[in-house]
Amino acid sequence: MASSSCSIDLSGPTYCIVSGASQGIGRAIAAEVAKLLGPKSLMLLLARKADELAKTASMCQSDNVKAIYKSIDLGKASTKEMNDVIVNSLEGYKVTDFATCLIFHNVGSLGNLAIETARIEDSNELAQYYDLNVFKVISLNTQFLKIFEAVEDRIIIVNITSLCAIKPMSGMAYYCSGKAAREMYFKVLAEEKKHIKVLNYSPGPVETSMIDYVLTEAVNDNLRDVFTSFKNQGVLLKPDMTARKCMKVLQAGKFTPGEHVDYFDDE
Amino acid sequence: MASSSCSIDLSGPTYCIVSGASQGIGRAIAAEVAKLLGPKSLMLLLARKADELAKTASMCQSDNVKAIYKSIDLGKASTKEMNDVIVNSLEGYKVTDFATCLIFHNVGSLGNLAIETARIEDSNELAQYYDLNVFKVISLNTQFLKIFEAVEDRIIIVNITSLCAIKPMSGMAYYCSGKAAREMYFKVLAEEKKHIKVLNYSPGPVETSMIDYVLTEAVNDNLRDVFTSFKNQGVLLKPDMTARKCMKVLQAGKFTPGEHVDYFDDE
Repeated sequence: MASSSCSIDLSGPTYCIVSGASQGIGRAIAAEVAKLLGPKSLMLLLARKADELAKTASMCQSDNVKAIYKSIDLGKASTKEMNDVIVNSLEGYKVTDFATCLIFHNVGSLGNLAIETARIEDSNELAQYYDLNVFKVISLNTQFLKIFEAVEDRIIIVNITSLCAIKPMSGMAYYCSGKAAREMYFKVLAEEKKHIKVLNYSPGPVETSMIDYVLTEAVNDNLRDVFTSFKNQGVLLKPDMTARKCMKVLQAGKFTPGEHVDYFDDE
Repeated sequence: MASSSCSIDLSGPTYCIVSGASQGIGRAIAAEVAKLLGPKSLMLLLARKADELAKTASMCQSDNVKAIYKSIDLGKASTKEMNDVIVNSLEGYKVTDFATCLIFHNVGSLGNLAIETARIEDSNELAQYYDLNVFKVISLNTQFLKIFEAVEDRIIIVNITSLCAIKPMSGMAYYCSGKAAREMYFKVLAEEKKHIKVLNYSPGPVETSMIDYVLTEAVNDNLRDVFTSFKNQGVLLKPDMTARKCMKVLQAGKFTPGEHVDYFDDE
């Protein structure tokens, strides 16, 4: 592939946040991006489970990369706590020390799969789901944008989305509608901030704990059938496969602002 | 146009809810659908302002149609209140009295236009916006589905969506993301309930109080420019024009389950 003028170079000193970095796709993304980052890079890994974050950090740490982590429940954190966690990670650094400022919004949950879509009525449960999956993602993103405002043209944002954001899936009304909302927020942001690179990356069906959660919780037969056949036919992707594809898409830099790019899309 | 087997006949006794029926598109939809309904039809008009609802009701009332209204703040109403408002409207009727059970989810707001997308961080304000525009719409829809469960195959649901649900618009992150979420919920519902007709109708740019709200509130220059030129060039649709198109789309019945159909789409 001929190199394009818009290709993204991560080989300089890079600041990089990964949310939901304690497992699955988040961990794989952290490990894959770490391999690409240049000297004096700094990674901040966020999730609830400190012990699992420590493992991810050890996978990322290298001569080039200092990997730190912070246990935080992004569904409950205040704006100030989010701001503090980023500011504290930058102690001893200036934002201008970094050639690239990168954030992967990977945190996410599936929502209540034990209810038929036609019976959803609990607005508090909906609010709680959206809080973690949409509202707090927006809040964290805004703290990131504020803190790196002076070097705004160095910012790259990757939202981990899903095919479900653009294609309805039976039995997943929480997940589909939340992903649709989240992806659209990033698209509007990309529309306004043309000099910030924004990618909506859809990782495909990946072998994570979410798969078993669906098989255990889902009341929708079609949904369980789809995931059972994914599992039985061995078509589920390994987290590192989709994380590598995400890096390829990112580095090629061919995506339009806020574009939804799927694992299975042509390169 | 040759009549299609899937065309929708509203000339029987019809039960019909319109939310946000006190003004603009909601009022126009109520008035237009009322003209099509057969003898012994019953309309329930919902919004906050009783006096404006009374005007809409008088536009709908006819030999065929009994139009009643109820002042309700759908952003604050509990599930029980929503259920009660529908049940009470049905006093003296059985659900089997109606050949068609129709609901137009028109209620909606624009969200905070006075903040740049890159500065949105107040998750409580986001939650409040989504409550009225997404969560409570889902709750109301579920009450409707429960009450008419025995005649589920007679149900028709129309969600008033927007081009903004599928196309990002600068300065409208609340509106775009909320409309995306709301539309996707209805798409998932349609996917699960193939025997219920679900339409996402996008009314185009309509001359309503929302236009002036944008011009007054919006901090995004591009957004204000777009709406100013809509206004100056006289391209804004009258509410009754888009309401009539909505009825044509509905009656033709050619939409796929949950399809997003725009005013400007070919017939």
